[in-house]
Amino acid sequence: MSGAPLRPEPLTAAAFAPFGEVLEDKTARRVLSINQNTATRFGDLANADLTREGGRPMLSLFRAAPRPLILEMLECHPLGAQMFMPARPADWLVVVASGKDAPVLAEMRCFRARGFQGVNYNPGAWHHPLLVLEEGQDFWVLDRGAPPEESENANLREFWFKETPRQIKL
Amino acid sequence: MSGAPLRPEPLTAAAFAPFGEVLEDKTARRVLSINQNTATRFGDLANADLTREGGRPMLSLFRAAPRPLILEMLECHPLGAQMFMPARPADWLVVVASGKDAPVLAEMRCFRARGFQGVNYNPGAWHHPLLVLEEGQDFWVLDRGAPPEESENANLREFWFKETPRQIKL
Repeated sequence: MSGAPLRPEPLTAAAFAPFGEVLEDKTARRVLSINQNTATRFGDLANADLTREGGRPMLSLFRAAPRPLILEMLECHPLGAQMFMPARPADWLVVVASGKDAPVLAEMRCFRARGFQGVNYNPGAWHHPLLVLEEGQDFWVLDRGAPPEESENANLREFWFKETPRQIKL
Repeated sequence: MSGAPLRPEPLTAAAFAPFGEVLEDKTARRVLSINQNTATRFGDLANADLTREGGRPMLSLFRAAPRPLILEMLECHPLGAQMFMPARPADWLVVVASGKDAPVLAEMRCFRARGFQGVNYNPGAWHHPLLVLEEGQDFWVLDRGAPPEESENANLREFWFKETPRQIKL
């Protein structure tokens, strides 16, 4: 393993701002009492940038298995945002790095998201694929659906580490 | 109370088709193994009709309190779809009715959604506001954000029952 293990920090809107948005009650842009005052709408949580170059909002369900907490690559989606919303309130891990054409691995960061927190990755933000800590952690995912004529990988870049992998230490 | 109590039926894609879509693993239009085969994407769950008349995809969190299971009104959103995805796997209730300018109350139906099931209401589909069975059932909600110049209620119609309320019997 190269470098010191990556240690998760708490996920807050301020700390995560360079990479995107934290999705939770307290990050709502507008809070409203609705439904005859039986519910609260924590509204407009995300800059849902999903329609560039013929894109459309696409809703999916991701089912991830726990995997070794050893990082070998990051990915990003240059043409659209990507929002992950837990379907079950269990903690999960978010790994991101600054950088445009390639991630700045020396500045990689890991956040421990609480089970009630989702995230929205900005278009182009380097991040690791889903890292869950338990079996059965499903996520609702909102991202950019590509138009039919678009090439398979137009909205996916992968960066595989040239050096040895980096470990997360909980 | 008017009429026989409404009894919940199981929520299935076929039964719900006149009103919208059920959001769950088995309703995916496309299933893919992703993330180095550590996750499955149950993709493209919904016809996310959100951009009519200057609309945009808006992500929110709804926090609903349990309320008496007595129905006095239905609502619909003529300009956009509305998707409810549970943030915690607890059962909830979905009440819908056919009809265009007004709901056909004699054909009102109630579905019991399992905690892993979301729904997408078609634009214009008459439905009851969120009905939860326990405290603390939050939902991720994706619907149409209105352009700034649009009037407050352009995308909301309410229909209050002229007759007496209708009860749900679990």
